[in-house]
Order: sequence, then structure tokens, then C-alpha cells
Amino acid sequence: MATHDHVLHSGVRAEHDLLGDRDVPADAYYGIHTLRAVENFPITGTPISAYPDLITALACVKQAAALANRDLGLLDGRKADAIVGACEEIRAGKLHGEFVVDVIQGGAGTSTNMNANEVLANRALELLGHHKGEYGKLHPLEDVNAGQSTNDVYPTAVKIALDFTAQRLLDAMEVLRCAFAAKAEEFADVLKMGRTQLQDAVPMTLGQEFATYAVMLEEDHKRLTEACELIREINLGGTAIGTGLNTHPEYAALASRHLRTITGLPLTVAHDLVEATQDAGAFVQLSGVLKRIAVKLSKTCNDLRLLSCGPRAGFAEINLPPVQAGSSIMPGKVNPVVPEVVNQIAFEVIGNDIAVTMAAEAGQLQLNAFEPVIAHSLLKSLTHLRAGCLTLAERCVTGITANKEHLAHLVAHSIGLATALNPHIGYEQATAIAQEALKTSRSVSELVLDKGLLTKDELQFILLPNNLVRPHVQTTTVGALGGPLPD
Amino acid sequence: MATHDHVLHSGVRAEHDLLGDRDVPADAYYGIHTLRAVENFPITGTPISAYPDLITALACVKQAAALANRDLGLLDGRKADAIVGACEEIRAGKLHGEFVVDVIQGGAGTSTNMNANEVLANRALELLGHHKGEYGKLHPLEDVNAGQSTNDVYPTAVKIALDFTAQRLLDAMEVLRCAFAAKAEEFADVLKMGRTQLQDAVPMTLGQEFATYAVMLEEDHKRLTEACELIREINLGGTAIGTGLNTHPEYAALASRHLRTITGLPLTVAHDLVEATQDAGAFVQLSGVLKRIAVKLSKTCNDLRLLSCGPRAGFAEINLPPVQAGSSIMPGKVNPVVPEVVNQIAFEVIGNDIAVTMAAEAGQLQLNAFEPVIAHSLLKSLTHLRAGCLTLAERCVTGITANKEHLAHLVAHSIGLATALNPHIGYEQATAIAQEALKTSRSVSELVLDKGLLTKDELQFILLPNNLVRPHVQTTTVGALGGPLPD
Amino acid sequence: MATHDHVLHSGVRAEHDLLGDRDVPADAYYGIHTLRAVENFPITGTPISAYPDLITALACVKQAAALANRDLGLLDGRKADAIVGACEEIRAGKLHGEFVVDVIQGGAGTSTNMNANEVLANRALELLGHHKGEYGKLHPLEDVNAGQSTNDVYPTAVKIALDFTAQRLLDAMEVLRCAFAAKAEEFADVLKMGRTQLQDAVPMTLGQEFATYAVMLEEDHKRLTEACELIREINLGGTAIGTGLNTHPEYAALASRHLRTITGLPLTVAHDLVEATQDAGAFVQLSGVLKRIAVKLSKTCNDLRLLSCGPRAGFAEINLPPVQAGSSIMPGKVNPVVPEVVNQIAFEVIGNDIAVTMAAEAGQLQLNAFEPVIAHSLLKSLTHLRAGCLTLAERCVTGITANKEHLAHLVAHSIGLATALNPHIGYEQATAIAQEALKTSRSVSELVLDKGLLTKDELQFILLPNNLVRPHVQTTTVGALGGPLPD
Amino acid sequence: MATHDHVLHSGVRAEHDLLGDRDVPADAYYGIHTLRAVENFPITGTPISAYPDLITALACVKQAAALANRDLGLLDGRKADAIVGACEEIRAGKLHGEFVVDVIQGGAGTSTNMNANEVLANRALELLGHHKGEYGKLHPLEDVNAGQSTNDVYPTAVKIALDFTAQRLLDAMEVLRCAFAAKAEEFADVLKMGRTQLQDAVPMTLGQEFATYAVMLEEDHKRLTEACELIREINLGGTAIGTGLNTHPEYAALASRHLRTITGLPLTVAHDLVEATQDAGAFVQLSGVLKRIAVKLSKTCNDLRLLSCGPRAGFAEINLPPVQAGSSIMPGKVNPVVPEVVNQIAFEVIGNDIAVTMAAEAGQLQLNAFEPVIAHSLLKSLTHLRAGCLTLAERCVTGITANKEHLAHLVAHSIGLATALNPHIGYEQATAIAQEALKTSRSVSELVLDKGLLTKDELQFILLPNNLVRPHVQTTTVGALGGPLPD
Repeated sequence: MATHDHVLHSGVRAEHDLLGDRDVPADAYYGIHTLRAVENFPITGTPISAYPDLITALACVKQAAALANRDLGLLDGRKADAIVGACEEIRAGKLHGEFVVDVIQGGAGTSTNMNANEVLANRALELLGHHKGEYGKLHPLEDVNAGQSTNDVYPTAVKIALDFTAQRLLDAMEVLRCAFAAKAEEFADVLKMGRTQLQDAVPMTLGQEFATYAVMLEEDHKRLTEACELIREINLGGTAIGTGLNTHPEYAALASRHLRTITGLPLTVAHDLVEATQDAGAFVQLSGVLKRIAVKLSKTCNDLRLLSCGPRAGFAEINLPPVQAGSSIMPGKVNPVVPEVVNQIAFEVIGNDIAVTMAAEAGQLQLNAFEPVIAHSLLKSLTHLRAGCLTLAERCVTGITANKEHLAHLVAHSIGLATALNPHIGYEQATAIAQEALKTSRSVSELVLDKGLLTKDELQFILLPNNLVRPHVQTTTVGALGGPLPD
Repeated sequence: MATHDHVLHSGVRAEHDLLGDRDVPADAYYGIHTLRAVENFPITGTPISAYPDLITALACVKQAAALANRDLGLLDGRKADAIVGACEEIRAGKLHGEFVVDVIQGGAGTSTNMNANEVLANRALELLGHHKGEYGKLHPLEDVNAGQSTNDVYPTAVKIALDFTAQRLLDAMEVLRCAFAAKAEEFADVLKMGRTQLQDAVPMTLGQEFATYAVMLEEDHKRLTEACELIREINLGGTAIGTGLNTHPEYAALASRHLRTITGLPLTVAHDLVEATQDAGAFVQLSGVLKRIAVKLSKTCNDLRLLSCGPRAGFAEINLPPVQAGSSIMPGKVNPVVPEVVNQIAFEVIGNDIAVTMAAEAGQLQLNAFEPVIAHSLLKSLTHLRAGCLTLAERCVTGITANKEHLAHLVAHSIGLATALNPHIGYEQATAIAQEALKTSRSVSELVLDKGLLTKDELQFILLPNNLVRPHVQTTTVGALGGPLPD
Repeated sequence: MATHDHVLHSGVRAEHDLLGDRDVPADAYYGIHTLRAVENFPITGTPISAYPDLITALACVKQAAALANRDLGLLDGRKADAIVGACEEIRAGKLHGEFVVDVIQGGAGTSTNMNANEVLANRALELLGHHKGEYGKLHPLEDVNAGQSTNDVYPTAVKIALDFTAQRLLDAMEVLRCAFAAKAEEFADVLKMGRTQLQDAVPMTLGQEFATYAVMLEEDHKRLTEACELIREINLGGTAIGTGLNTHPEYAALASRHLRTITGLPLTVAHDLVEATQDAGAFVQLSGVLKRIAVKLSKTCNDLRLLSCGPRAGFAEINLPPVQAGSSIMPGKVNPVVPEVVNQIAFEVIGNDIAVTMAAEAGQLQLNAFEPVIAHSLLKSLTHLRAGCLTLAERCVTGITANKEHLAHLVAHSIGLATALNPHIGYEQATAIAQEALKTSRSVSELVLDKGLLTKDELQFILLPNNLVRPHVQTTTVGALGGPLPD
Repeated sequence: MATHDHVLHSGVRAEHDLLGDRDVPADAYYGIHTLRAVENFPITGTPISAYPDLITALACVKQAAALANRDLGLLDGRKADAIVGACEEIRAGKLHGEFVVDVIQGGAGTSTNMNANEVLANRALELLGHHKGEYGKLHPLEDVNAGQSTNDVYPTAVKIALDFTAQRLLDAMEVLRCAFAAKAEEFADVLKMGRTQLQDAVPMTLGQEFATYAVMLEEDHKRLTEACELIREINLGGTAIGTGLNTHPEYAALASRHLRTITGLPLTVAHDLVEATQDAGAFVQLSGVLKRIAVKLSKTCNDLRLLSCGPRAGFAEINLPPVQAGSSIMPGKVNPVVPEVVNQIAFEVIGNDIAVTMAAEAGQLQLNAFEPVIAHSLLKSLTHLRAGCLTLAERCVTGITANKEHLAHLVAHSIGLATALNPHIGYEQATAIAQEALKTSRSVSELVLDKGLLTKDELQFILLPNNLVRPHVQTTTVGALGGPLPD
């Protein structure tokens, strides 16, 4: 770190670290550590500023640390105010362009922390009336990073960022859930054939089918909410390996109290900081829940694509709203492109989960060095899932229509109706009817009446939609046709 | 299904299904549906009886269904008693050898359900004084399976089996946690160097290191307990697609009440049975938690192998108890074979999670046809993880010893001690000391004293183990050397 | 190892290793090392004898080593003959029950190698007229394992076993390919609608569709054959870490020459044995190819399930042969259980690939300690894929029939025919026709004729099946209608 | 598509598609189809132009198609020239900013193809002296896309892009291989202890260790080269589903001949275009090979981190060049950040492989709709692996130094030397020596001499480095000491 700070005429300023001197662009808020990291990790071309929640979260943590250090008398009040001022600017969205290290980086997040330390120090210096690089006045490590280590600051910031980003996903999931729920209501009375193992099964309503997707999202919403609670356990104050070396005994409690206020999140400090410093379990759990959400969304999109396949040679039960021409060669073709893009997001999220898993497993001894790729993978999964939910809701689900006549026709001609006869004529006899219907292309109803197995009234009652799509069997054979039989 | 049941002299009995007639071994409790499934799925050679918890769970569900049907007047009391009697025998461990269908099978578990229906019907027939195969007297489908579908029975049974098996894993995790906790206490005062990114960091105790492993297991125990709660939501009563077709309106509540009593588990019925019938989310979540446990166990075993590497050219901080000769060529070599086997279990579990994920994603419309491979994968993960925890506890952790002198030597000569000087001489000066120590092979302490940066008393106080392994920085530079300074 | 061998009266014999003495069952061919391994690894309950090809391969390697040592004068001729005799018995299928260590085991395969050494030594002792356990006469390590290490013997045996097992899979793939090819020929003239993105696209023949599956298998057959070539590079002679310590300079070449003769495989010795000893790349590659095969098989089964979905409310283009009743509640329902079981095998194989990947990545320095789980995963994938191919061929594909009238009807009424009009009336006009057809439920042909866009003859020519399912556009607008135009 | 093209004064031009009219920015080269796709897929924020090789490849394919259509008389010469001119500009790097659709998109690549068609049409229009949007003069679909479908153009372009990008990775792998090979030569005579299962094994040279990494890369280079050959089989000419509908019978051969010339790649046309259109096998295989490379690179980086761990409390066998300060709290700490970033790239690539696998498995019937995420994943893996190889070579491997004295000391005091005594004193006696050495902290050599088991000359000869690191055992016990034996 530059001990004799000076800005060169040539538009650069010299900085110093344990490797020697380097020129940094004079107007850069970042410094030599950031510069070296940029050179060392030219991997994805995507800087960490691609995740604004992460930059904001870093500023939150630095602000809390500065306030705690000030409270404890370990940081000069004027310096603390300047650092806090710089943090608030960043939280307001300023200077994000100065966060330039790559999203995939070695060093357990050290470069991200260094980047934050340097940007904050240089902005704080300006707020104090100094020039960038005058670290003798306010030092990125000795002041901005006081009482901190990457190993507690970075995971804490990542967790806060994940929580911020997860809230956006939760909101998007709710938008999608409402879209499905509205369709469930709209289609509440549309009778259709249910299918198991892709074979005609028994009747249900299209409303029940769409309600399913809403319920799935509701459950996943709960699971994600729970996973977010787990990532609110932080290790701030543990410093290098969780022992809290170089911190004041009251620092951890004080800093996290400030952090709760700043973020508005109910953060708790882990009771065993050594464990918390090395444990990537909460990340794995969160990733597992995102994978769960992805699996369910993908299944839902598979269903939507299946139910809408056609227009003439497929199920053609529902119509997805057309959002673009589907083919460069086939005129008039419209494809289910929105569900398809959500499927692909799901595949990506499931892949990201493996990256998270491997990175978590690879942690050694007192630290997981691979948290940057964990953070990158999770933030990517969260933001893409959110985009997928919103696109699916707005550009697909809300515009879905049903082909009601076709659906009714399929139910009327279904062999699956034979199942409803089980309680009345037995599995074996129902099987015989089903086989004959299939062979002769006649309907189950016709055959039952022809053979005199049930009267027309009995059959009609059994096949009332209301009786088909919910439990209704009564306890005696006579009553089996439903309580107060019409006489 | 056999309409005219009879046992042939030749040691077989004829049975009938929609495909025609088949001879079944006369003494087999299973029947024609099972026979066909065995022929159709010659995949792994492992029958479902490899998971006794699954067989027991099937019997629990069938027993609950029979009781509910009896209560509702839908099943004759004598038949019900016979079915219940057969279920209790199976729950007591009998006839498991009759559950012969392959663990990987098509058909969403239908063959497993059919296998259970047939074994129970034939045993119930015997209990009623009839012969096997006399299905006119008591029918596998019309009686044993009354009011049921594979699609509610099978997932319910799988969930109960998973819960049973998970409890065994939870017990094993507690055994392992205690083993680590005991070592944490034993090593509470053994000072050692902590490491981050495999580089010497700052001091800690070996007790803190082992406590970490205990805490990790404690947390994972909680997570698995939560995941078990999720799989206690069942869809019994939903029948084919969750609409409850062919059930009495009170059946679901009644059957699940019986099932709670029989299993002792606080099972709940899903509020949307259509959703519950097709949703594999709880399985994905459970699998994700098992993956989390695997990741943490693998990380722990990686650490154990690393800390014990040697005997002369490695870390050699701890010694794992030798449990077998390590090499067929290298005399005297002993290897960390128990952690190694746990690593491999972890890899398998992580792989199983992908199988579960893909199977869950592949579910279509009203049912997930791929639950058998989900059940197989999860039961495998649970049982292997349990075996791994017990083996690790009993054959490795409890016998670990520490090389205390070596550990103390490493701390004394560590450059990492320079970190503790930060609050007293600043990051930049501490860096210079660290670099000189590394270059000259001298100790940090020597250099600090030589340069007169601190007095011997001050230095000794800073390097007191108690001050190194927990927060102790005070708020003024003078006081920074710790509260009640010697005057 | 027992230095003073003696059999106790009590049905056990005492053996000795570096941990002390242990009693081994008197009639066991395995010895103390195996015994300890069985106790240390009570993981899956599946012994390595579950993979007969692995036991056979171990015997091949041991036989080759004994012959090479005999040739070099490093092993007494009588001992060598006895060892060779024992190996040949095992290769003939005898004594496999003595290979009792678990398929998941710590120790890089040491326990498997020890198990082989002990069984062979004891059987060789008997062939020499001695008792089991008289290791002074012929020693499991000094004689059977002479010039060997687990680290060259085990990977070599695993590779040979994989090759043996892969050949069986290749044969099964060919059976399945022929089944698809036969159907392709049978359905060569059955016109149907092709679908992209589950939407009606343009016509093709059902024969083309089935030919696809045959071609996929043909390609995968080539890829697996190539992957097998890679696993034929062995590291025999490298001993502990590939340096060949304790081997004669000619041993590696000599032993592998014998091994080629014994196995009939064109094995080669790696040119850098240090690299070959630690490199799991060939396993990862093989696993990747198995995953590819799984992906393609799963896609194929997805298609078969989709094309056969119905019988009335689905595509119903083809019929899979019924192989068992499909439902315990729905009479007459038949499900695509055979494709479903193949899907599940595919999911398992894809999961196994992750286990292999993680195990391979976890190898450290001069050895991969996790080869047992690699071997287990690959052998499982190979055997299950084989079972899946055979079952799919024999119980599904060969019995598939087509619903030709339904297929023809779908083509005739398809809007996808509009694509064929592109070269004649342009994309924009064809789009208008397609949209009108969809809106009015009229056929594309009708509309084209009504609007006078083409004559009936022209249209008929364009829609000749032969012209629809292969390239036929000619170079001028007039000629675009192809061959012998009406003048 | 706009039938009446006109540019509005307001800075937009109106275009038309099957959904209606839309304004497109007047200066945009892309058109309405692209615009809708941008709105429909707001997923990652990364446009396809992030992969310049993909944009170039698209231009290559379009150029080849235009030339083939011109040759066949199906495309007017002036139009063809203009399209070719536009393609060449794009291949030269121009207009890439107009390729704005998201890397993750629904629709099997249709939007990417549409984007290319529109940009090329508008640029060609300009080259012909027209305005953008005057599609009556030259049409994106009827001219630029003539005889093509997304379903043959897009996979072909993706494969070419993968090949281009893979060549860059191959070059980077060669750079890294050379770096390792140079170190292998530099360290050829540095004796060290080899380790298996993290336990001291037997001696080797550091040169052998580094040669391993070079050999691994050499092998992986071959595997990637082979995988590239597979992706050179294209389906151009198959159009919508591989039947070649709307193409001239000679088009496929002609277009691919042009494409070979343009790209310089030995592309072949698949013999079954229906199969080739739906088969994602070559992508899965390529991804599997990239995963293999990732696994090996990660293992290598794990080794580098392990061998360099220290500086005082670890192996400290080698030193990685410092490239940045390692810690914000620990002065002087330097971390292995370059290997760490490569590990993380590897984890990402392994995750990407799962995304590719799932996307490939999800393909249905005549097309894989999920190729965009396959392309994205593979291009990401290729480019990141390339970056990792170069960074690792340039910022780490070339600067590695060895701690030779420390290495020599570890060999001299190793118990692993006992293995070299096996052929001379037997495994059992060697075991006793090893155990005594361990217990007494004495050296193996001392003990052997003390006990008179070998003479000092014999021992020295056995322990000659040259004899330790390669095969040297001779065929008689006397001769076993090798070399210049007493005659």
C-alpha cells in the first residue's frame, strides 16, 4: 500500500503493495490491489458490479464495521463519518462502475473486499478534502478494513446480497403464482381428462390443473423463505478464521447490530464463528432450494408445452399467447418460446447447483476459498429465475386460453371413465368394459348401458362432473351412487 | 386377475390379468402382476426388499386403508381383519422375501403396489383358511387395494419409509457429532496454526477445529429434521390423480388418522391432493439436504486426511487410528481408509441427487412416473450416509490423537503471528516483519524484539494463547495490550 | 501376515498383520486383510463379487504378473504354476463368493487387491498340497503380489473389467438398434406429421422417425467403442506411484504381453506410468460417453411415450405392446412401463457420472484414492444400460404398431403443409394461408385452391409424399414443381 | 414481415409480422423479429454478440447458403452478392453490436437466426443502395433465409462457433502444457517423496511430478481434438426437420462445399439429416470432454496448492509466484489465487455440463428446442477454460520454484524408503523396520545397517536416486542389487 502517496502528472498515481509499485489511473477509485486482481483474473469479462445487490451489501457491511469501530473508539470520528458517507453513496447506486474485479476470482473474495476497501477509502478521502491515494490520511486496510478480514466481511456481504436478490425472486414467484391462480379460477368448471404416465387417466378440471401450478409456487415460496432465514446467520467479527483475532470483544455484537439497522434484515451472529467461517452449508441449502424451484418450474413449463401442442396434431387443450413468429421456414408456426426459455433457465440453475456443490465440498480447513464462484452461481440463479418467473407470468400464463369443446369431447369419449364404475361394477368387470371400448371404438357409457350394468340415471349420476372430480363414494352399494338418490 | 382360482398339481397356480393367463409358483405369495413386473424389469438384480423400511411402510399404509374402509362399511370386517393381520406380520419382518420386484421399475410404483396387494391378499387368504390365489374370496385389487391407487399409496409409503430411514441417519449423525465433540474437549488446550487457502493463517486450538465438525453435524441434523417434516405431508386418499375418485369423502381423513397411529409419525394430508399427487418437491428438498450433509462430511474427511498426512513428509498434526495395512507393496504404510470411504459415499450421494433431480423434473401432468428411482436413490443415500457416519465415528474419530509438540512448534515459528501485531504496529509494518521473517528464516517474535517495536512483556501478553484464539483487542493503543496491564 | 501359520481346531485359523493377530474362518480363502476390510467398510452390503467381470479381470492380472515374474526368474516355477492354476479357476467362475469386500471401500482398491492376493494364495497353497494360511510356503504379498502394487494392479483390473462389461453393452445396443431399424423398414411408407418444439411442423415418414433412433444408437456404439480403446491403456508395472520401484526393467512389457494373451484385449502400457497411475481421465471420458448414451436413450423413450400417449386423449400415433396391467385402480389402463424404466436407468447413469466426476477430481498427487467408487459407478452404469437396452428391444420396440389412418388424417389436415408452398407462393402468402386455415378450421389445400393460388395438379404434385419427405425443389419457379411438369 | 416498408420521420421504421405492426429504431439493422425476441427474453442481459465466434459462424453459414442458392439459380445474382458482402463485413467484425438477442432464449435458436437474417438483409439492402426495411427489395426470410430453416442453420453455426472457440482453447492448453514441461525439465533431478492417499509413499523426482501435468494436458488435447471432429458433422440442408423440404436436391452438398471453403473447416454433412437435426449427442460428448479437462485441471491445481502450502506449517515443497497480497488482515500472506481461480472455472464447467446434459435429454421428437442454452454453456466453458489455462501458465506455473533442500531432507528421513528394501529383505521384515523407524524416530537406513541386514554399499546402491525412480530390480537375489555386481 502506498506509504508516500503521490499522483503523477501523466494521469496515473503510484501505489505500493508487497509486490512493489504500480501506477493506477489517477481518476480510479480502486487501487493497486484491485488492479492486480483485474490482471490476475481475466476470466469471464463480467465485473462484480453486474450484481448491484452485492456492491450494496459490501457497502452495508463496511458501514456497520466503521460505526462499530467508531463506537469502540478504535476509529477516529472524522474518518468514520467519511467512510460512512462513502458507503451511503454506494448504497445509493453511485460508483458501482469502480467495482471491476471479475465475478470469478481466486482468493476467497479478497479481491472483492480489497476493491471495496479501496473505492471506499478513496471516496472517503475526497469527502475529507484529500486526494485519492493519500492513504496516509485514511487507509484502505488499516481504517476501512479495521477489525475485519475478507473471511468475515465477504461471506457476510454475499449473504446479504443473496437475501436482497432472493426477495426479488420471491416477489416474482408471487406474480407468477397469482397468474396461475387467476387461470385456475377462470378454468374452474372446464372438465378435462387427467393423465398419468402420459396415458388417459380420469377426469378433472382444467382449474384443478392450473391450481396445481399455483400451489407448487406457494410451497416453493415457503421453502425459499426458510432458506433465506438460514443465510441470515453471519460470521461478522470472526476475522481471519473465526477466532475474532484483532477484534474487540464487543465488536461482533456491535457491528451486527449496526448491520441489522442498515440492512433492515434480522441478521444473527453465528454462535460458533470458527465453524461459521468455513461452513458453506447455507449456500448449498439455498442452492438446493433454487434447484427445487427450477425443477418445478421446468415441470410446469413441460406441461404447458405439452397441453398446448398442436395446433392440429397434438393435445391442443390450451393455447399459449403467440409472442413472436415461430419459424423462419414454416409460415404461421407459433412456438411455446416463453416456457422454453424458462426450461433453459431451469437447466442452468440445476447446473449452477453442481458448481456450488463442488465449490462447497472443496473448502479446506478454516476457510472455503471458492466462495466467489458460489456467490456468482447463486446470484445468477436467483436473477435468472426471477426473470423467468416474470416473463412466464406476463408473456405466457396470463394469455392462456382453453379449447373447451375439444376438452369436453375427450372426456366424453374417454375410456378412463371406466374407473368411476369400479365401486359399482367391480375392477374386473370394468376392465372388460374398458378393453371392449378400446377394441370397438365405442364409448364406455354406451357399453355399460347396452349390457344393462347400470341404468341411465345411475350412470348419469356417476358421471356428473361434480362427482368425478372429488371424493363421493358412499358406504353402501346402493348409496354408492351418492347419498339422496333421485327416485 | 384370476377369476377362477385354482392351484395346479405341478407346483404352480394359474392367475389371470388383462394380458391373459400365467402360472405362478404355487407357494409364492406374490401373484401374476408381480411375476410380469419381475420379467419386465430385470435391471439391477436388487429387489425392493433390500429396503425393509419400504416394505414395512407399505404394510402400514395397507393396514390403515383396510381399517378406514372397514370403518366406512366399504370392507367386510372379516376381510379387514385378515388384511390387518397380514400387514402386521409384514411389519414384524415376515414375508419380506416375497417382495421381489426390482428397485428400478417402470410404472410409477404400480408394480411395488401390486406386489404388496398380492402378498397381502394371499397371506390374508391363508389367515381366513383359504388357499393362495383364491381371489374370489379376497381380492388383491378389489379388497386389499380398495379405495386406493398406486398414485396415493406408493408415494405415501415411500415417504414413511424415508422418514423411518432418516431417523436412523439422524441417530448415526448424533453418534458422530458426539465423537467429534469429545475430541473437541480433549484437544481444547492444544494450540495450533489455523490455515486459510492452505496457507498458514493465525493460531487456534485443535479443540476449536474439532468443535467445528461437531457444530456442522448439529446444524445438518436440524436441516434433516426439517426436511423430514416436509415429507410427512402425504397424499393418501387422492387415488389416481388426486381428485379422490372412488373414495368416500371421509376416507382420506380416516385413513391418515389410522396411519398416524400405526406409524407413530405426525403425518398430515396435503390440502391440495391434485398438487400433492404430482409434486416431487419434498423429495428434491430431502435430496438437497442429503447432498448438503454429504458435502460437509466430505469436507470434514478431506480435513482429517490432510491433517493426518505424513507420517514424515506431511502435516502430521493428528494421527488417525490404523485399521488395516495400507499397502500391498509399501511396508508399514497406513492409510486414512475410513475417511476415504466416507468421501466416496458423499460422491455417490451427490450423484444420487442428480438422479433424483432429473427424475423429479421429468414428471408430467398429473403424476411423476419416475418415483421408483427417486425412492431408490434416496433410500440408498440415507442408508449409506448412516453407515458412513457410524464407521467414521467408531473406526476413526474416537481413536484420533494429536501430535502436540509438533503443533506447538509450528505455532512458535509461524509467520502468521504477525497478524496479531496489526493493532499494535499497523498492517504495513507487520507486513515488513512478515516478509523479513520469511526471507531470513527468523521468527516474528525475534524480529519484533530486535527492532524494539514492542517490549518482551508486551509481546508475551499479545501471544498468550488465550489472547490469540478469541477477541481481546481493547479500545486504546495502550489498553490494546489487554485489560488489566501489569503495572 | 501370518509368519507362523497354523489352523486352529475351533474352525478358525490365526493370521497376523501389522495391527496384530486375528482369527479367520478356517475354510475361508480370504485372509486377515480381507477380514479387516469387511469390518471397516460395512457400507452397501454389496460385495465386489456382484461384478463377475471385475473378479475375472483381477485373476487375469494376477496370472499375467505371475507368468512375468516366472519368466524373469523372480518367482519359483512351482509357485507360479499354482498361482496360475488358481487364477484360471477364478476366471472359470469358481470361488467368486470369496470376494467379499464392499463395492464402496476406502483405500484406492487395496482391499480388493488384498482380497485377490489372499484367495489366490490360499487356493494356490491347496493346489500345492498345503493348507490355507501356510503363507510361509506361498505368500499373498511376497509371491502373489510380487512386483505389484494395488496402484497398478487395481486400475488395470478395473479397466479390463470395464472393457469386458462394455462389450456386453455394445452387444445389447446392437440388439436395440436392429429392433429400431426393423421398425424403420416396416414403417417406411407411413406418412406422418413431424413436430418441432411440440408444434406441428412438416410431414415425414414414421420410418424416418424410427430410423433416427437406430442411427443414434449406431453413433453411440462408435463412441463407446472409442472410449473402450482409451481404457485399454494400462499402468501395469508402475507399482506404487508409477516409477516402477521394485520391478525388473522388463517386467512391465512382459506382464502386459501375457495380459494381452490372457484377456484377448489389445492392451497397451502407458508411456508415462507416473501420469497413468494418477490419471482418472479415461474413466471420466467413459462415463461421459455412457452419459451420452443415457441422454439419447432417455430422449428416445420420451418420444416413444409421447407418440403412444392416449389411447384417446393423446397423440396415439403408435401403440406400445402391453406388458402388464398399468394401474391398480384404473381398469384397462396400460402404461409405457418399459420406456419408463429405461428413463430411470438413464437418470441413474447421469447421476453416476457426477459421482465419477467428483471422485476423479478428488484425486491427489500420485494416486486417485477414490477409484473404488469410480469402478462401482461405471460397472453399475454399464450393466444397467445393457439391461435397459435389451428390455426395451425385446419387451417394447419389437411389438410397436402404428395407427396409420390416424397418422394420415393428421397430415391431411395439417397446417404444416403450408411450408411446402413457400417456394411456390412465398413465405408471406403462405403465412396468410396458414393463419386463415387455423382460424377457419379449413384445410390448407382447400384454401389454396379456393384462392386459385395453385392448380389442383400443381398442388397434388407438391403434396406427393415422395416430394414432402425429401429435397425436391427445382431451380426455376416453373420447374419448382419438380420433374415431369404438366404442360 | 413488412410488406409495405417505409421509414418514419420519427426515428423509427414500421415493420410487420404475424402478430401485427411494430416500430423498430430507424438505424437498427435488426428488425421486428429481433425486437420481439429482445422483449420476450430479458433473461441474462448478455447478448449473443458476447460470443463473436458465434456471430462470425452465422455469417459463414448465411454466406454459404446464398452462394449455393445463387449457383442453383434460386437466388438472384445481385441479391446474392449483396448478402455475401454483408456476411463478409460481419465476418470482419462489423455490426456485431446488432446481434442483441439474449444468450438464453426460447425457440431453438429461431431468434438468433432471425437476428442474423434481419441484420444481413438490412445491410445487404444498403449495399444495393436501398434503405433498411425495404424488404420488398430483399427479404430477410425469402432471400437471406432461402432454402434454410433455423433448425439446420443454427446448429450448423453453433458447431462452427464451437470449433473456432475450441481451437483457441487448444492453443491455450498447449501454452500451459509447455509451461509444465519446462518445469519438468528444470526439476528433472530434484528428488522428493511421492505420496499416495496423502501418506508418504516412495521417492520420485519433482520433474516426474510436473511432467505428469504436461502429459495430462497432452492427452486432453487429443481428446478435445477428437471431440471437435465430431462437431464438424453438420445438418445444413435438412431444413425444418431434416427431410430437406423446400431445398433443391443438390443444395445440401453445394452449401456445405461453400461452407468448407469459407470456414476452412473439414465439415461433413450427416448422412441421416433427420437424425442429425434432433441429435444433440455431439454437444454432450464435447461437454463431457470439457468436463474431463476441467477435472484434470482442477486436480492439478489442487496439487499445486497442496505442494505449496505453508510457508512454515505445510508441505512447502514448491513456491508459487506471488501475484497479489493475499489478505486484508494477515500481513505478508500470499495465497495461491491463480490455481484457486482455475478450480472455480472447473467447478463452473462441470456445472455447465449438467445444464448441457439436461438440455440435450429434454429434446423432443424432431428437434432439440434447447440448443441455445447448450450453445451458451459450451461457449462459456470453452472461453473460461481458455482464460484459466493462460492465466495458470503465465501467472503461476512459469514462476514456480522448488525448495530443494527441504525436499531432499524429507526423502532422507522417509519411512517410505523401506519399500525399496522389499526385494532384498522381504515385505514382512521391511514392515518391521518401517514400524520401528516410526516408533523410534530413527531413519530406515540406520536401522537396516544397525541390524546388519544389508551392507553400507548395498544400501547406498539401492538408494541411488536413479534406482529409486525407475525399474531396476534384477532377476537373482544377488543381482537384485543391480548394476556393476561383483563378477
